[in-house]
Amino acid sequence: MSEDTSFIGLLKNKWDEGKFVCVGLDSDYSALPNDSKKSESIEDNLVVFNLAIVDATANLVNSYKINSAFYESLGPEGWSALIKTVKYIKTTYKGILVILDAKRADIGSTNLGYIKMAFDGVGVEAITVHPYLGMDALQPFLDLKDKGILVLARTSNPGSGEFQDLEFKGKALYEIVAEHVAKKWNKNNNCGLVVGGTFPEDLKKVREAAPNLPILVPGIGAQGGDLKGVLKNGLDKNKQGLIINSSRGIIFASSKGDFADRAREETEKLHKQIQEIIKNV
Amino acid sequence: MSEDTSFIGLLKNKWDEGKFVCVGLDSDYSALPNDSKKSESIEDNLVVFNLAIVDATANLVNSYKINSAFYESLGPEGWSALIKTVKYIKTTYKGILVILDAKRADIGSTNLGYIKMAFDGVGVEAITVHPYLGMDALQPFLDLKDKGILVLARTSNPGSGEFQDLEFKGKALYEIVAEHVAKKWNKNNNCGLVVGGTFPEDLKKVREAAPNLPILVPGIGAQGGDLKGVLKNGLDKNKQGLIINSSRGIIFASSKGDFADRAREETEKLHKQIQEIIKNV
Repeated sequence: MSEDTSFIGLLKNKWDEGKFVCVGLDSDYSALPNDSKKSESIEDNLVVFNLAIVDATANLVNSYKINSAFYESLGPEGWSALIKTVKYIKTTYKGILVILDAKRADIGSTNLGYIKMAFDGVGVEAITVHPYLGMDALQPFLDLKDKGILVLARTSNPGSGEFQDLEFKGKALYEIVAEHVAKKWNKNNNCGLVVGGTFPEDLKKVREAAPNLPILVPGIGAQGGDLKGVLKNGLDKNKQGLIINSSRGIIFASSKGDFADRAREETEKLHKQIQEIIKNV
Repeated sequence: MSEDTSFIGLLKNKWDEGKFVCVGLDSDYSALPNDSKKSESIEDNLVVFNLAIVDATANLVNSYKINSAFYESLGPEGWSALIKTVKYIKTTYKGILVILDAKRADIGSTNLGYIKMAFDGVGVEAITVHPYLGMDALQPFLDLKDKGILVLARTSNPGSGEFQDLEFKGKALYEIVAEHVAKKWNKNNNCGLVVGGTFPEDLKKVREAAPNLPILVPGIGAQGGDLKGVLKNGLDKNKQGLIINSSRGIIFASSKGDFADRAREETEKLHKQIQEIIKNV
């Protein structure tokens, strides 16, 4: 096992253990099971829920992805819950990565605020960013050698083609983004891409444009992404390279007291499906 | 004066008063004058600073723009300061708009978290968003009839052309974004665009693509945007339609105890320059 403690190093360790699943802690407070709402404090309830999910799934996953929208919506209490959740994961389950799915991106030095938020304040290893502003704007992110900077290439929403499919000299914008990130942005070996699991054919093109980059694939599970197509088209030459994310399909598998057990079952199911498919790819 | 209390209605009232300036409360805590750091509490100091700037400039502006990066970087305390600042503006200076420059955008329902954060939690009238995901992803924002949804078209950073200048059938991506927002996204008359003041020629093309949309123009002041070119190319047929933003050039005009007075002077200077140029356009 590598002693490399960078995002990419830790991720490779997990792939070597055969772990591809990333559980999304999209813990929409209004959807939380009543069983995890025993306190008067929103913050406490959210932390209790998240920690139960984490404890039930940690030995099956390579990472947790936390979408900041569900926490910001609750104000300062939500931010505290987010910070406590990440701190618990980092202290209890060494080597498991946390990705802040915050989809940030501003110009130059303004990004330092987001960097401080994500990496000092919250304490994650990776963040998702929008590509639209270009490399020079995102340089403060790209300078972070040990972190993971995951750039949106092809998003999972049905209408993602509105701009992402526009073709420039025969190549779609999402392919150009993938190519730029792979060839120009990745000088510190810290970049990855995000490609929705709902578009396995496009994932193939992204993998061709970026043979060696980790690719985060959301949209498996509740959004109905095609797991077999994703693995077939997205694995790298070492049969690694993918972070397969399922969120609601796992964390809200049950709305009752057995939510953590059911989350584990769904995670295990996905983990085994992946292992089975990889054997035969 | 219109009784319309929507973002666009309130904005028009301010334009009718001849007010175009938007002061950016990019209140980077490390750059705050010592005079506004008298408390042990980061939150209190930040609020004291912001309120002093607001009190000194409110009768000269149409809006304040708050870049969330500078607040998020401070954790829950920063969020509280942001909320208190907005609440003060909303209760003290009726009719002055607050734009949350948060550059958010996620898929579909996830945006509801950001909407709750911005419009219920923080209480602003408008938010900036990335266009990359397309209209269907941003629909929850576009459904908010009374709010302002300001879509990044041409950003002010030097390398913004990396993707924004790619040409599809003779039109640059940023023009296509402007066209889509004007023709397809703006069904509720609540959309606007963001075009960096550093690219007045591109602003001309955006104004052609979107003759009736409000355009937020950051990059005036510290980033060196060309005010005359911006007004010449960006005003609509009523000689209105622009939100001219200056941030650091105003709020950090002095690092001493006179920071609020100096902020007022800089705001007044910009306000008068704009009025002078408009007379002769």
